[in-house]
Amino acid sequence: MTLPSHEIEVVPSFYDVDPMWVVWHGHYVRYLELARSALMTRLGYDYEEMAASGYAWPIVDLRLKYVKSARLKVPLKVRVEVIEYENRLKMEYVISDAATGEKVTTGFTIQVAVDVKTGEMQYVTPQVLWKALGVTP
Amino acid sequence: MTLPSHEIEVVPSFYDVDPMWVVWHGHYVRYLELARSALMTRLGYDYEEMAASGYAWPIVDLRLKYVKSARLKVPLKVRVEVIEYENRLKMEYVISDAATGEKVTTGFTIQVAVDVKTGEMQYVTPQVLWKALGVTP
Amino acid sequence: MTLPSHEIEVVPSFYDVDPMWVVWHGHYVRYLELARSALMTRLGYDYEEMAASGYAWPIVDLRLKYVKSARLKVPLKVRVEVIEYENRLKMEYVISDAATGEKVTTGFTIQVAVDVKTGEMQYVTPQVLWKALGVTP
Amino acid sequence: MTLPSHEIEVVPSFYDVDPMWVVWHGHYVRYLELARSALMTRLGYDYEEMAASGYAWPIVDLRLKYVKSARLKVPLKVRVEVIEYENRLKMEYVISDAATGEKVTTGFTIQVAVDVKTGEMQYVTPQVLWKALGVTP
Repeated sequence: MTLPSHEIEVVPSFYDVDPMWVVWHGHYVRYLELARSALMTRLGYDYEEMAASGYAWPIVDLRLKYVKSARLKVPLKVRVEVIEYENRLKMEYVISDAATGEKVTTGFTIQVAVDVKTGEMQYVTPQVLWKALGVTP
Repeated sequence: MTLPSHEIEVVPSFYDVDPMWVVWHGHYVRYLELARSALMTRLGYDYEEMAASGYAWPIVDLRLKYVKSARLKVPLKVRVEVIEYENRLKMEYVISDAATGEKVTTGFTIQVAVDVKTGEMQYVTPQVLWKALGVTP
Repeated sequence: MTLPSHEIEVVPSFYDVDPMWVVWHGHYVRYLELARSALMTRLGYDYEEMAASGYAWPIVDLRLKYVKSARLKVPLKVRVEVIEYENRLKMEYVISDAATGEKVTTGFTIQVAVDVKTGEMQYVTPQVLWKALGVTP
Repeated sequence: MTLPSHEIEVVPSFYDVDPMWVVWHGHYVRYLELARSALMTRLGYDYEEMAASGYAWPIVDLRLKYVKSARLKVPLKVRVEVIEYENRLKMEYVISDAATGEKVTTGFTIQVAVDVKTGEMQYVTPQVLWKALGVTP
């Protein structure tokens, strides 16, 4: 079974670059967010639907490895792929130069489900996620 | 009658500066927010108290004039002063070099009170603001 | 004579919205930058070409008027138009709801040309700008 | 031998918090930067001195683990500690509630030295770092 993945394009802006004319390392977190949100929107389970489902999905772990610098206005591809969903939602990311395909950054995020009413963390992810991902229990 | 004013220090960080090693013009809005929030906290009417009072205070107008560039790690003073409160809350700002006193940026913000329940804009600002400012009707 | 204008679409992201689920007022400066940079790229006189021409174009004045709140993932149109170029570069912006056309924010930016070598502000904008704008002296 | 460490206080601002009134996970990267820069300033080897020494120190790896949410205006302590320096500069961070001491976030960053002239990564960190850290070869 293949889990869902998605790809977006991001173009670094002037406010993204530092004095070396390269993207400041902290701004890549925004690029991950854009890719993840685009994927979840396509699957019908983004912020609004999460709120409606009674679960919040805070990020509990984040990793970014920087391979190459991204530059002002040089388009990037951001690919996100779901790789775990049973107990927590883990996604892997590859950011690459859109023209050359060279790898720029890799990373992952891990989210857990929290019941908004009780504030309790769920050790098995809720069925609404499984449904959105198209997996069967 | 003198209306309340406040002064804070801000030190530009690496993520604030652009390829010219000067603060990107959009980041000054954050500096205004820090000064305004510090003033309102001192007056006992910041975000939390605004929410509790039943009014939101969206910014409806913003102006920034850039006189001189601010540089990485060169401390700035941000002075904020209330200059109107009867129908809208207007504050003026002066950002200057903390060491030399040279003017860096000036600006203003205008906020209006919105009744959170009805969504209606208030054409006279609510008494809770007047009290916080120490002015008598 | 009509001066150049341009229009882009921006979709507010999760990191753009504040506790009221609306775009924090300071983030609109980024939206202006995106539109301005897209226009200048089309005209062949964006950051790289500015640097190559020996002029920097710092923003010296910025105004934003907030008419309506922008919301998470609700697409915006950002229209930018050059309205002055002889002595300074002034652009006006209108941000509106991409679906309904309702006005969200208006604003302007003013930039001046600075000779990078001498550091001197130019009281008449350099010919390289006029050429990019398609205006004849 | 104890390697240098440093501690700063950070107060989350309105533009740091998301619709849940907690700090958006990506903004913690800024908090790490503030602590790291304060430490390196104290040691006399921050951005300016790095540039003067002929080395750039890009971040090549970043990890953040989120334990507890940080809230608007609730002061945080950010502690940074150097834990490796021979071949790369690794620092560990602990962000905690300044009042209660409760752990909020932990993380690390890894930087490598790059010779600015040749663009070559250094597999042994330059002596200028060792000197700043007070370690002897």
